[in-house]
Amino acid sequence: MTATTFAEAQAWIVSVGRWLDGKGWAPATSGNYSARLDDGSFAVTVSGRHKGRLTPDDVMRVDAAGASLDGKKPSAETALHLALYTLFPECGAVLHSHSAANVGLSRAAYAGSYSFAGHEMLKALPGNPTHDASVAIPIVDNSQDMAVIEAAIAPRLLAPGAAPAYLIRGHGLYGWGKDMAEAERVIEAVEWMIAAELAERSFRG
Amino acid sequence: MTATTFAEAQAWIVSVGRWLDGKGWAPATSGNYSARLDDGSFAVTVSGRHKGRLTPDDVMRVDAAGASLDGKKPSAETALHLALYTLFPECGAVLHSHSAANVGLSRAAYAGSYSFAGHEMLKALPGNPTHDASVAIPIVDNSQDMAVIEAAIAPRLLAPGAAPAYLIRGHGLYGWGKDMAEAERVIEAVEWMIAAELAERSFRG
Amino acid sequence: MTATTFAEAQAWIVSVGRWLDGKGWAPATSGNYSARLDDGSFAVTVSGRHKGRLTPDDVMRVDAAGASLDGKKPSAETALHLALYTLFPECGAVLHSHSAANVGLSRAAYAGSYSFAGHEMLKALPGNPTHDASVAIPIVDNSQDMAVIEAAIAPRLLAPGAAPAYLIRGHGLYGWGKDMAEAERVIEAVEWMIAAELAERSFRG
Amino acid sequence: MTATTFAEAQAWIVSVGRWLDGKGWAPATSGNYSARLDDGSFAVTVSGRHKGRLTPDDVMRVDAAGASLDGKKPSAETALHLALYTLFPECGAVLHSHSAANVGLSRAAYAGSYSFAGHEMLKALPGNPTHDASVAIPIVDNSQDMAVIEAAIAPRLLAPGAAPAYLIRGHGLYGWGKDMAEAERVIEAVEWMIAAELAERSFRG
Repeated sequence: MTATTFAEAQAWIVSVGRWLDGKGWAPATSGNYSARLDDGSFAVTVSGRHKGRLTPDDVMRVDAAGASLDGKKPSAETALHLALYTLFPECGAVLHSHSAANVGLSRAAYAGSYSFAGHEMLKALPGNPTHDASVAIPIVDNSQDMAVIEAAIAPRLLAPGAAPAYLIRGHGLYGWGKDMAEAERVIEAVEWMIAAELAERSFRG
Repeated sequence: MTATTFAEAQAWIVSVGRWLDGKGWAPATSGNYSARLDDGSFAVTVSGRHKGRLTPDDVMRVDAAGASLDGKKPSAETALHLALYTLFPECGAVLHSHSAANVGLSRAAYAGSYSFAGHEMLKALPGNPTHDASVAIPIVDNSQDMAVIEAAIAPRLLAPGAAPAYLIRGHGLYGWGKDMAEAERVIEAVEWMIAAELAERSFRG
Repeated sequence: MTATTFAEAQAWIVSVGRWLDGKGWAPATSGNYSARLDDGSFAVTVSGRHKGRLTPDDVMRVDAAGASLDGKKPSAETALHLALYTLFPECGAVLHSHSAANVGLSRAAYAGSYSFAGHEMLKALPGNPTHDASVAIPIVDNSQDMAVIEAAIAPRLLAPGAAPAYLIRGHGLYGWGKDMAEAERVIEAVEWMIAAELAERSFRG
Repeated sequence: MTATTFAEAQAWIVSVGRWLDGKGWAPATSGNYSARLDDGSFAVTVSGRHKGRLTPDDVMRVDAAGASLDGKKPSAETALHLALYTLFPECGAVLHSHSAANVGLSRAAYAGSYSFAGHEMLKALPGNPTHDASVAIPIVDNSQDMAVIEAAIAPRLLAPGAAPAYLIRGHGLYGWGKDMAEAERVIEAVEWMIAAELAERSFRG
């Protein structure tokens, strides 16, 4: 866990929103981002903002139960972020990307996971020292009840060797890390592998 | 309806043109944008400008019948914008994107609509609280006579539960909202769902 | 024909190179651009420069026979530009884009042309007032002898209703106009229609 | 060989990282870049940095055996760079791109090479004066042991007419040149031809 101040988290989250939007992974107010703070509370994006145009005021604080600490309204998916911080005490930041490619994959793949095997990029995932591996990213069905998603995904994230990422079908990718830089790396690595698998399919065509 | 001053509308329209062009949705002078003004007139883009390089002078004023109020020549599609403002008194801004993906879809889909189902992104459309829905975006044939397009689309836009968007075959996407931010969100959400459906098809192979 | 000064042409060509490179249509020193000057000579890009990083010094002058007027070495394809200025006295600027999509199309389409029909975007081509048309863009085989390409394409460009554009197989797109803005519009319109046809094929799947 | 100072190499490598990341060819700390220095040592990227966000401090010096000259830790793939400098005394810079398209191709193509034929872009490869050629880019299997990769690729790179580029399956593209500008051109040309082949396949359907 890398704790951080609220001001640092505000700056990180504004910056990561611009970066994800620049890649087309944060369209139309989708996405939500958070960081664990040094006082035990959490910085999260407020509800309904375009993530490519955040200002520091669009980042707010909630307690560990998700209650607003500053009168602002957090994203409806804040509960999914907090569940990850509870499951993984070393987790310092959580990101959620909403790319056309990841949603296309999760809608096309009816199984409960998608496996990436043989990619050098697998080494970008914490704890994977080699490309010579197969990593399954879980896919859970979407729900407007965060508790349903949380209950479906939690046991799978605790399985030995699980990657710090999962897909919600038709909804997007969650990824996390000990700090924002690691969470960014996880998101970028998984999104990139999805794009590479898409290119591979076209070449196999 | 969110009425706005002409100066505000000029700034919004210049900005939205750069944003849409940056995404490749406004090629070669295509596209036209408008906003309802607080005096009952309308700001619209002038005819024939590249939308990624607009200046405030490329935004003009027309009355509710489409007559120029400042001697400039409005886009030939101004009538489609005005028809929407008449149909929907709460409509404050109208956008028209011309992406390769939306035109590819409308040319490939011979039916009179294309349905998006199960996308979390459906929640970006005003009035849709859940992903667990199917929203049909109407497709009408293109015509150089705006009255023909208007007559074909109006009844469908007034149907219960209709989304604030439609496609003209081989021509592009219209989307609108109570203000420019909402119109942008509608356009970005529909364009994104089209891209996601394309990725899904590639994954299904 | 819109004649221009050399200084104006230098500024236009530097700018258009950045724009085309930003779209991925000018990779690895490919592409060459020119403008007719008010003194009867021509501004052209020098040989071997990356078109996204041109400076005014990378634009040179040649006479109507292609001889260098300033000691610099023009692009090997200068003869193709000059042939267009000779065929079309009203032509003021010529551009050549080298996109993956246009080269993919010309390599896949074995016929001598590719037709675009029913696109609203056809109205971006000078002289086309409607989408309800079919415009054939000629495709000629590539050669390292510019005279061979020129002899193959010239009669087709003079046919009634011919568009101001053609493809060289495996090599790229030529487009032109009365001035640089019109040449840009032609290139962007044809490249965009190629991308839209590609999307349409994916949706037809 | 174009030798350069360490300060020049630092500036080049920071710049090339931004450029490659901007194209999506350097995701999630992937990629590594180097240059031969005028004192016989080599500038290389340090291990584990995001290549789109390098600072001069993220470029370090190693000797011809790969030993750090400044206490920093070089990329694990430094040995592959040094092998190229040893094989080719005229080589001044080496780049490694990690695009979705090149990895997709190398995973789909089970043969030991992929041939590009008839592309005008082949002229961007040093020593190729015509499009009327077929150039095979070798593909070797990935390994976490650099010596295994090096032993597999070296004989193929020394074959008559070999291009200055090869693919590691599921891992990325290596390209090099007499200086950084030539290495950039090789990488951009090969990546572009891969994208064009992908577009061609889509048009062939």
